[in-house]
Amino acid sequence: MSSSSAARPRWADVASDASGSGRPLRLGLIGSGRIGAVHAANLAAHPGVDFAWIADPFVEEARRLEARYGAAATDSAERVLEDGRLDGVVICSPTPTHVDLILAAVQRDLAVLCEKPVDLDLARARTCRTAVAGASRPVMVGFNRRFDPSFASIRQRVAAGEIGRLEQLTIISRDPAPAPEAYIRSSGGIFRDMTIHDFDMARFFLPDIVQVTARGSNLFSDYIQAAGDYDSAVVVLTAADGEQVTITNSRHSAYGYDQRLEAFGAEGMLSAGNSRPTTVRSYTSAGTAQADAYEPFFLERYAAAYRAELDHFLQRVRDGAWASPGIDDGVAALELAEAAVESADTGRTIAVGSALIHAGGETAREQPNREVSSSGI
Amino acid sequence: MSSSSAARPRWADVASDASGSGRPLRLGLIGSGRIGAVHAANLAAHPGVDFAWIADPFVEEARRLEARYGAAATDSAERVLEDGRLDGVVICSPTPTHVDLILAAVQRDLAVLCEKPVDLDLARARTCRTAVAGASRPVMVGFNRRFDPSFASIRQRVAAGEIGRLEQLTIISRDPAPAPEAYIRSSGGIFRDMTIHDFDMARFFLPDIVQVTARGSNLFSDYIQAAGDYDSAVVVLTAADGEQVTITNSRHSAYGYDQRLEAFGAEGMLSAGNSRPTTVRSYTSAGTAQADAYEPFFLERYAAAYRAELDHFLQRVRDGAWASPGIDDGVAALELAEAAVESADTGRTIAVGSALIHAGGETAREQPNREVSSSGI
Amino acid sequence: MSSSSAARPRWADVASDASGSGRPLRLGLIGSGRIGAVHAANLAAHPGVDFAWIADPFVEEARRLEARYGAAATDSAERVLEDGRLDGVVICSPTPTHVDLILAAVQRDLAVLCEKPVDLDLARARTCRTAVAGASRPVMVGFNRRFDPSFASIRQRVAAGEIGRLEQLTIISRDPAPAPEAYIRSSGGIFRDMTIHDFDMARFFLPDIVQVTARGSNLFSDYIQAAGDYDSAVVVLTAADGEQVTITNSRHSAYGYDQRLEAFGAEGMLSAGNSRPTTVRSYTSAGTAQADAYEPFFLERYAAAYRAELDHFLQRVRDGAWASPGIDDGVAALELAEAAVESADTGRTIAVGSALIHAGGETAREQPNREVSSSGI
Amino acid sequence: MSSSSAARPRWADVASDASGSGRPLRLGLIGSGRIGAVHAANLAAHPGVDFAWIADPFVEEARRLEARYGAAATDSAERVLEDGRLDGVVICSPTPTHVDLILAAVQRDLAVLCEKPVDLDLARARTCRTAVAGASRPVMVGFNRRFDPSFASIRQRVAAGEIGRLEQLTIISRDPAPAPEAYIRSSGGIFRDMTIHDFDMARFFLPDIVQVTARGSNLFSDYIQAAGDYDSAVVVLTAADGEQVTITNSRHSAYGYDQRLEAFGAEGMLSAGNSRPTTVRSYTSAGTAQADAYEPFFLERYAAAYRAELDHFLQRVRDGAWASPGIDDGVAALELAEAAVESADTGRTIAVGSALIHAGGETAREQPNREVSSSGI
Repeated sequence: MSSSSAARPRWADVASDASGSGRPLRLGLIGSGRIGAVHAANLAAHPGVDFAWIADPFVEEARRLEARYGAAATDSAERVLEDGRLDGVVICSPTPTHVDLILAAVQRDLAVLCEKPVDLDLARARTCRTAVAGASRPVMVGFNRRFDPSFASIRQRVAAGEIGRLEQLTIISRDPAPAPEAYIRSSGGIFRDMTIHDFDMARFFLPDIVQVTARGSNLFSDYIQAAGDYDSAVVVLTAADGEQVTITNSRHSAYGYDQRLEAFGAEGMLSAGNSRPTTVRSYTSAGTAQADAYEPFFLERYAAAYRAELDHFLQRVRDGAWASPGIDDGVAALELAEAAVESADTGRTIAVGSALIHAGGETAREQPNREVSSSGI
Repeated sequence: MSSSSAARPRWADVASDASGSGRPLRLGLIGSGRIGAVHAANLAAHPGVDFAWIADPFVEEARRLEARYGAAATDSAERVLEDGRLDGVVICSPTPTHVDLILAAVQRDLAVLCEKPVDLDLARARTCRTAVAGASRPVMVGFNRRFDPSFASIRQRVAAGEIGRLEQLTIISRDPAPAPEAYIRSSGGIFRDMTIHDFDMARFFLPDIVQVTARGSNLFSDYIQAAGDYDSAVVVLTAADGEQVTITNSRHSAYGYDQRLEAFGAEGMLSAGNSRPTTVRSYTSAGTAQADAYEPFFLERYAAAYRAELDHFLQRVRDGAWASPGIDDGVAALELAEAAVESADTGRTIAVGSALIHAGGETAREQPNREVSSSGI
Repeated sequence: MSSSSAARPRWADVASDASGSGRPLRLGLIGSGRIGAVHAANLAAHPGVDFAWIADPFVEEARRLEARYGAAATDSAERVLEDGRLDGVVICSPTPTHVDLILAAVQRDLAVLCEKPVDLDLARARTCRTAVAGASRPVMVGFNRRFDPSFASIRQRVAAGEIGRLEQLTIISRDPAPAPEAYIRSSGGIFRDMTIHDFDMARFFLPDIVQVTARGSNLFSDYIQAAGDYDSAVVVLTAADGEQVTITNSRHSAYGYDQRLEAFGAEGMLSAGNSRPTTVRSYTSAGTAQADAYEPFFLERYAAAYRAELDHFLQRVRDGAWASPGIDDGVAALELAEAAVESADTGRTIAVGSALIHAGGETAREQPNREVSSSGI
Repeated sequence: MSSSSAARPRWADVASDASGSGRPLRLGLIGSGRIGAVHAANLAAHPGVDFAWIADPFVEEARRLEARYGAAATDSAERVLEDGRLDGVVICSPTPTHVDLILAAVQRDLAVLCEKPVDLDLARARTCRTAVAGASRPVMVGFNRRFDPSFASIRQRVAAGEIGRLEQLTIISRDPAPAPEAYIRSSGGIFRDMTIHDFDMARFFLPDIVQVTARGSNLFSDYIQAAGDYDSAVVVLTAADGEQVTITNSRHSAYGYDQRLEAFGAEGMLSAGNSRPTTVRSYTSAGTAQADAYEPFFLERYAAAYRAELDHFLQRVRDGAWASPGIDDGVAALELAEAAVESADTGRTIAVGSALIHAGGETAREQPNREVSSSGI
């Protein structure tokens, strides 16, 4: 990802890059739900993309997007994969279908951008990782927050040494309101469903996590408790050289979607806050400098991130380089989620394998099966 | 302009509105320079637009945009106007051509979005105003700052009574660096070229300006002084009921493009600041909470405003309503610029006609010739 | 004024300086009204001061302070001046008594810290200036805002060249609510009573003001209008080398005492905002980052400034140096106020003498009578 | 503690309260080191205090303060305790002497304000708690941060229900630089020496902590590691009803003393940030809105807190009410520190007794011996 596109993704810029690269890339979209609609709009607006297909078994949804963006609707993902002239697919279908679709696309030498998680079952995700190891084109997992202009900027500035060695990372991540009960029951729990983004964010900065301590609480939602899940969670991660990460999660937030990060290093700190629609501040007898409410949820907050993610994917497809975050990163985040579940259940700190794939470096190390061990460290 | 589209212009939203409105609007672009390229990118990305033509006598520029966006390039504005199926044109050609192109488009019943200024010659601008009075489709002037999400939000909140009666308006507007000498010499001077945006912003809030006091200084640029122009300026406007406006301008700003506004009312204040690419703050031994540099200039700062402006124009074309800001507003801003020139030259406060067209209301009053009078008020 | 004492006035620091300087300074206070009470508390708490007297014709007020602080109450200023062992007096009596008390104190070789204004009558203030020219001990005027930690810090950083040449100064100054009608009627008008602080602040940065343009409005207060005064005012000042100052005043402010300053220079900008009792911010569904109300009025906002002002006075008394701001500065601010009155009345820009005393330099130039001339410049 | 004195402690206000209460309180200071000097300055400046004694075995230090503040110096704490007319003592002597001095003062019916910790040995601190249970006058422990205007304001607003039920508390606390090696070796370790403040702050909001999880790291200081201590620490606390607290500590901070708190509740969030000497912001080509460095360390940051703490103590002495924080709170914070040490050593979450004394309520419950149990919860 180029820093400038991350910082200010604009189609004009993108087009400029793309224009020198010959023909547009022909892409298909599988899944036309909430996230699918975001990708559809971005695919349609991108001058470097020939947006060819929208597949969804609920073909009415696909047709709605076809009417708007011109890509052909179909109820068959297979139809898309067999297009013959396709460069790649964006997969936004339900989680249980991800692995099969990834494998089918890789088999046809298509590039893949797949929404996370790879799978809720760790073993299956690992199998997928092995299977795509020799893919001829990039396979990328949609950890879109890595492309948030603010988080990406901090990552780049930390990598450039601006704050010296990174010592402590503070991540606060709160949803505006709990997902519906049905969603919660099939979500895999707060650590696999919500904290997984923060696990990946932690690994974006500190790829080698070696210990996980997690605590969950039930503070406000009866149906989350009834589902055997937590509505509030705190996680402490320790990286290979002792660096510390704290993650604070809540399934609700009265003041909107709360997504913040602080990187504390030997020579300074870099923080990223929430974004707002305007810069307006109000001053009244009730108080001063009151700003807008935060962006309501991820579609608004991460709109630029989704565009930058697509840019990054397209660039990797064009230059043939390894796309990051990859399936490795998807698996690694799941491993941390599993460890968190165990830690919250037992009150113990869980050691995780030190051989997790590096996210930042573009090369992958051997990946032994993770040994989840419970110990006093 | 709907508030939500102003606050967060997103093509997905726009498309949603447009999708219910039948066929896309067929539009041509005249002028492919710096601003033309902005409009070209927005026209191409907008799902409600059939972007048909790009005209420029320097046809190579037009062809460059054609290659990127698919609209047909031509060296002839006439060719565009005679398309036959066109709904409207976006005019970004050099200022001296604006009036002729507006009139030619209006004669062919085309909607017009024309970059400001209408003309540097006030008499000619007034003639144009008269000529378009009976236009069958909207004629809109590109005072894009009215569509800046923050300024538009304040305007809406003031109109909603949030701070009571508006009493004082503070506008600070500084360019990052002086325009080149050649540009300055043909610009018409700081008040007609730069402050004109702020005059329109003042009228966006307080349409009836009755007095103008202006002071100019030469503080840093020899070639601006040699051109008989000022590099720094302060203007005080008084509105019909005594409301006060201050405008502070500079042709340079070491910290980037500086565009701020404060609306002070009987019950509070609303302010809008500058925007930045990210929310990142740095904390080091040198200081705390240092934010990014501001957006470098108007293309970046007002990117959302240009999109919202295009939205507004398209909505007016569809619903047939009067487009604001119109030629009336373009003329009114020029009248204030003329008065500022006289005030700076004479050290006197200049009275301007009380019958300037209301910007906010969508109806226009009779507009007598402005009587520039010098008096002790 | 030393920068550190200005930035963070603390009695512990002060004491440290004072402890090396031998005996405490014996001081008396004349006037025990609202400002007198502020000075009384500071005099009592300062380890370098022997707080000896409190004089007020309303001796009950003086006795109230005596009970709290131990200084002897008297109804006679004369009694204080004739103490014999006194080092100086702090004069907080009604404005019309200032000149006589200053002269009486100077005659007895006492140091003087006198609240502003010197006098509402410019001629009388000039006479006082002449009379104290040869004073053996410092005579200082209480323009306390010069000692505000934030304003003083900006002044020092501008003087150190941090933002290059100072080009534009923006001062916003709004009272929380209008003074009572009786006060307004005897105040001398907004320019002499309220803007005078801002005139001094302008001169703190740009001592040589050469032109004054002022506009007044009546926007909300019937009794201010009935008194022939303005409730809202805007002033533009031009300094000797073309630097520009804007002052925006209002007699009310729904969000509290509003005192801000921006110094814009060739290489950057320094701004100072309002202070609040805490750093607390609230985030709710109504909005984000809402801070406390501002300090309600000058007693709270400028509490640190009053302490730093007293420090500065004591240091000057000890080292025998000229105290700034002096009577010269008091006169210069009055001259600007007179010019503003004339400008607001006539709609003209008023030229003021270029030979105003420099505030920053500790030496005074010859001061001819100011020639108020009305011209087109 | 009254809210207004916490928010803006000013001697004038204090004096006003004290003036109605008869004679000043006669107090002695034991210990004239760094904190002793802070208390000496506050005692001397307070109009409600008769500052009688300064005791220190290093009598030269005491004499230095005597010269400045007038209280009599002595090398004997005993001499102070036997004054006969004394109301109370402020104890700032070395930690190992605290318990004996507290008991001696209580025996003589003196009020006590004692710096924390009560003792590094938990058993001894508990013994002291028992011994002072029947004290006739207030015995208060110097957890000064409770009196920080910002933290106190949040506490008050949370108690008033402004953010609904408190769910998560985030505390970040970083020292500017590590204490010297000798200090570290005798400090008792980061949890007993540094985190103890944060444990008390957690209990200020959530008195009933039931679980402690702590992780320590060695990231930058060789001599801290050599001393068997950590330079960086993260602690997670769970309160009786599941509320979660995270504490992040570091022994260094390149950008100054970092003391922040966020209280997140069902209906909103309240945050408190760091304080700075001025409100100045700078804008240059390097970045925008850069603020001052933070206050360097606790003497500056908590100056207002020390004054408010003294006010609170004096009020309790006058009204005879229980002083909070008391010895109970000192013991409770030590208990959490002990549990943190065990957790960091074992990697386990430690359960702590649910019967810790409530801090907020002014009544104390029965306090059984804490049962430190290691469990999987």
